[in-house]
Amino acid sequence: MKIALDMMGGDFAPLEAIKGVCDYLSSTPDPAHILMIGDETQLQPLIQQYQPAPGRFTVIHAPQVIGMHEHPTKALKEKQQSSIAIGFHLLATGKADALISAGNTGAMLVGALYSIKPIEGVTRPTIGAYMPHENGELGLLLDAGINADCKPENLEQFAILGSLFVQKVWNRPNPKVGLLNIGEEEGKGNLLAQATYPLLKENKLINFIGNVEGRDVFLDKADVIVCEGFTGNVMLKMAESIHDIVKRRNIHDDYFDRFEFEKYGGVPVLGVNKPVIIGHGISTAPAFKNMILLSQKIIDIDLIASIKSSFKKDA
Amino acid sequence: MKIALDMMGGDFAPLEAIKGVCDYLSSTPDPAHILMIGDETQLQPLIQQYQPAPGRFTVIHAPQVIGMHEHPTKALKEKQQSSIAIGFHLLATGKADALISAGNTGAMLVGALYSIKPIEGVTRPTIGAYMPHENGELGLLLDAGINADCKPENLEQFAILGSLFVQKVWNRPNPKVGLLNIGEEEGKGNLLAQATYPLLKENKLINFIGNVEGRDVFLDKADVIVCEGFTGNVMLKMAESIHDIVKRRNIHDDYFDRFEFEKYGGVPVLGVNKPVIIGHGISTAPAFKNMILLSQKIIDIDLIASIKSSFKKDA
Repeated sequence: MKIALDMMGGDFAPLEAIKGVCDYLSSTPDPAHILMIGDETQLQPLIQQYQPAPGRFTVIHAPQVIGMHEHPTKALKEKQQSSIAIGFHLLATGKADALISAGNTGAMLVGALYSIKPIEGVTRPTIGAYMPHENGELGLLLDAGINADCKPENLEQFAILGSLFVQKVWNRPNPKVGLLNIGEEEGKGNLLAQATYPLLKENKLINFIGNVEGRDVFLDKADVIVCEGFTGNVMLKMAESIHDIVKRRNIHDDYFDRFEFEKYGGVPVLGVNKPVIIGHGISTAPAFKNMILLSQKIIDIDLIASIKSSFKKDA
Repeated sequence: MKIALDMMGGDFAPLEAIKGVCDYLSSTPDPAHILMIGDETQLQPLIQQYQPAPGRFTVIHAPQVIGMHEHPTKALKEKQQSSIAIGFHLLATGKADALISAGNTGAMLVGALYSIKPIEGVTRPTIGAYMPHENGELGLLLDAGINADCKPENLEQFAILGSLFVQKVWNRPNPKVGLLNIGEEEGKGNLLAQATYPLLKENKLINFIGNVEGRDVFLDKADVIVCEGFTGNVMLKMAESIHDIVKRRNIHDDYFDRFEFEKYGGVPVLGVNKPVIIGHGISTAPAFKNMILLSQKIIDIDLIASIKSSFKKDA
């Protein structure tokens, strides 16, 4: 198993990426082989210093970097020797089994959609956001911002993708799927929610529990909550801001500590043909380690095959 | 000045309503005359007990009550002797200058829209939600849920209505108006946000500061944030749930104490021809008092006239 990691992506790269790799390699039984993609002149001194387990990684030189604020499509096209572009090349040609980056999110999405491509039957791949439940679990909210305008069919697909992720990756059987809405009863909501409800209700691939509201996001009511990416993104950023406020106000609380979204690592692009993990720009070593572990799990359980089979015609 | 108060609305009515009226009458210089609408047999013992300032109120008997979960239109039609129906009758016939209720929100909206009617030029009246800013101020987010599907023109009108409220009622000159979005730059967002941006940018009645994101809601970035009522309602309920969690976890913090939304009293239905204030179902005495004070202020400054003048053709 080979996992490609963009060593140059994120605010604290490549240092934190190296530290994350070292920690992963030394603490994981039977670890994956890590393809460290990045600028060799920056990576070698750090490798000398931190000494990742020999034989368990390969450095792949990438002389270019796509900056956090570069235009994704343009940058990917013009910087073919960037760590992200090389990463997608490795993934697309089967030389890597997963790709991870905490770099330019847009470039990662463009690469996932146009180089790796959506799974047949998936109209709109999606990325989610983890929402900490008060009972200690995590929920998955999707879409978290890449699909700002959605049709009912898109939300139905997010529900299937999210269910499979929670079931297979988090080992939670029969995950509860809720439709984000502004009322509890069927028939409530905006036109999109009203039209989505019957689709979810009749879909046999998911365990639909009905509408959930903004007040239910941090509760154990649903494992997966689906909405269009506009509301999802607003909610994610609002939750992140709660964490900032809690920190600024010096509040120490086990629950609110779990709002530190970067520590979860990253979220997969669900619905594309290979595992692609996008990390937070402020990822530190534990986040990089967690992203590698997540990739390993997704490959181990072959999540992609499960998704493909769910989206097969007559599935 | 006569302010009509539905004494029977809300989980703690009529007791907390009476206490709120007493507190208002005894602590306000030159108070408005309060029309207490409700079941006389329930009200009289409480009046005996709490002794509101004599001559400063009138009890108007209403033998019926619209329950919190009754169908709004049906209940208003069938229960003409309910406190809310009588309240709207007083308001519509000029016997009251404002109407307040913490009862059935739907019935209050139906009454406001069909009995009091939108101001000419206002396509969609709106209600907002107060959002506590970290700097100690409040922001106004609208729409908070009554307009789940909106057009760009609706959001533009919310911006004007919200600006006038913040400027006149909160005495904040030239309030900053932000468009809720999922990116900072013009051109970002879903189709609605993209189409709304240029309308807000060119509107001379408001001080448009551009896009704001979910993370900016609790900051001082904007005084007024506009969005459709689906996202607004989700945000409001998410913020309310944060307060519940903070309480459950026994966290004591000045800022998060300000998430106790009911204490602000209620929100006006903006864009209808008379002042109508809708309170939280769990309103207690301070909330009732605050709603009376808010109504008094709205009447004093004649907010309705300001709104009418802004929406006049060629305004």
